[in-house]
Amino acid sequence: MPHAYAVIMAGGSGTRFWPLSRPARPKQLLALGPSEASLLRATVDRVSALIDAERTLVVTSSLLADAVAAELPDVPRENILAEPVGRNTAPCVGWAASHVRRRDPDGVLVVLPSDHYIADAAAFHRALARGLYAASEGDLVAVGVRPTRPETGYGYIEVGEELADDVHDARRFVEKPNRQRAERFLASGHFLWNSGIFVFRASVILDAIATHLPGLGASLDAFDAAAARGGEREAVEQGYAELPAISIDHGVMEKAANVAVVPASFGWSDLGSWTTAWELAAQDGEGNVAPDGAVLVDARRSYVKAPPGKTVALVGVDDLVVVDTADALLVVHREHAQDVRRVVEALRSRDASQKPS
Amino acid sequence: MPHAYAVIMAGGSGTRFWPLSRPARPKQLLALGPSEASLLRATVDRVSALIDAERTLVVTSSLLADAVAAELPDVPRENILAEPVGRNTAPCVGWAASHVRRRDPDGVLVVLPSDHYIADAAAFHRALARGLYAASEGDLVAVGVRPTRPETGYGYIEVGEELADDVHDARRFVEKPNRQRAERFLASGHFLWNSGIFVFRASVILDAIATHLPGLGASLDAFDAAAARGGEREAVEQGYAELPAISIDHGVMEKAANVAVVPASFGWSDLGSWTTAWELAAQDGEGNVAPDGAVLVDARRSYVKAPPGKTVALVGVDDLVVVDTADALLVVHREHAQDVRRVVEALRSRDASQKPS
Repeated sequence: MPHAYAVIMAGGSGTRFWPLSRPARPKQLLALGPSEASLLRATVDRVSALIDAERTLVVTSSLLADAVAAELPDVPRENILAEPVGRNTAPCVGWAASHVRRRDPDGVLVVLPSDHYIADAAAFHRALARGLYAASEGDLVAVGVRPTRPETGYGYIEVGEELADDVHDARRFVEKPNRQRAERFLASGHFLWNSGIFVFRASVILDAIATHLPGLGASLDAFDAAAARGGEREAVEQGYAELPAISIDHGVMEKAANVAVVPASFGWSDLGSWTTAWELAAQDGEGNVAPDGAVLVDARRSYVKAPPGKTVALVGVDDLVVVDTADALLVVHREHAQDVRRVVEALRSRDASQKPS
Repeated sequence: MPHAYAVIMAGGSGTRFWPLSRPARPKQLLALGPSEASLLRATVDRVSALIDAERTLVVTSSLLADAVAAELPDVPRENILAEPVGRNTAPCVGWAASHVRRRDPDGVLVVLPSDHYIADAAAFHRALARGLYAASEGDLVAVGVRPTRPETGYGYIEVGEELADDVHDARRFVEKPNRQRAERFLASGHFLWNSGIFVFRASVILDAIATHLPGLGASLDAFDAAAARGGEREAVEQGYAELPAISIDHGVMEKAANVAVVPASFGWSDLGSWTTAWELAAQDGEGNVAPDGAVLVDARRSYVKAPPGKTVALVGVDDLVVVDTADALLVVHREHAQDVRRVVEALRSRDASQKPS
């Protein structure tokens, strides 16, 4: 069995967890799940049963590299790859695959988002083990999560014939469906949520990139050549911005022939908004999630986050998310949690209009 | 015409404006009306057209005396009377009346709450002028506000026969009525809201206190005697806590025979809750009141108060009051604004339970 390498994608700068998330402290660095650990830390810890920190790579942005290193002191500094600019996941996965291939031509990558929640670590490990097996056989493997509701916010993967024990042909990838279609997918039993977790040999994904995204493939070859001369950093600084901004799903997985999917159920959530954080947290008898010391009078199904020492009182309100920080306060109805990005957009355009031209 | 003296009652320690109001900075010291001035400052300014600061007395608590003096640098320090403990309004008015009578045996008091809002200062001045006239004739005068809605949160005064131009006999005082009764009062046209504003000669109210609250009358005489010996402060410190805690309305006005009422309409509000603050403030097209820089996305009929520099965002919410301070945050539905006192009670009992026994 070849060695497995975790590749954790931690370059995101999401806006839906404003005001807690900020450019320098985005979602993956926050403890948004039920535990005290950041989502990134929890991701590394969760995979550590299968993959040592020595073989864990983290791809992040230059802005976040130091914060990521501080969060993960067990991960060698040279395993933290800093993208000069974010170019979606295909360049990120390709660059990490190049690094792995240089170290270990037979190496297998387990690609993991750094900002998702997984409840059942044992089931997650079992799914990865099956994925590693299929990947070592040469497949491009996606981990698919059995859907529990007709979610319209996720992509889906259609399951084909069984290739091996609980490993299936991935018939097709489907973008976020509308409600009606999502309900059909759920009822059919043939569709899985695309978790964004992938397993493949470094050499296999690099070959697939060369085939389906030849421009990216050529750039990655150039980085390899520069690395051999000791000049990778400069080559990446100069060339990264010109890489195509495309996801590994769209750019490769949807097009390649040898794509398999491992169905799994491990209590997965992409933690897409404050509402999800509320759903995952331990709620009291009224459905509230609030820090010790909060005063809740006739309040129900609400989520409160505030700095230590701040007294928060909710009176006569239902279904609110209240997030307080030193310099910003958000009050949003749970059903409008997706609109938090509109706040960030409004603040950005205001900042821009106030800058000297 | 005898001299008029303003007696401003500023001892309140209300809880309904938590978290902005605190024991050391209660409602009257806050700018809760549409202007930038504190309610106390606005009260002094409003009456200043009729009564100089030299003849303005403020009765407050020992805790607040310095803050009141700082807020009212134009009012002589000796005009600020500090109660060692609050004993409702009858002792407060009686003590202030004693002070006025010592300075001016013919003096007339205009008793004013320090934490109400009045929109139309000119109409207010006209009402006071009529009250001063009736008081100089020996009446105990209440200023009654023509009701504009069947409010159940106010006391009412039934209007009797006209004694003089726009001065009527006050037939009776009625406690806060239920809804049905309030609607009858409004429809009858014979009832006014009790504004808590009174006008009477110092000697007349002191005589009425001696008749209807003889214990209080005797204590006030004792303070007078101590004052003549230069020992009022000690006498008040020792004796004030034993004064009967009763309002001037209940203790005297409801019982005395020579009580008149001056009907008036000057846009009065007792500013009884955050909802009232919202009602009085300048609302935008969506009915919102929020500081510059707030981000309002699908938010309606809401009131936001926050420290300078704090960015507040409301998303998808209606009818909320959001009040943020350095150490506390309140989010309350407008229709539950009265329940804010329950927050203060909860915090008090928690503090008490955490103190060493």
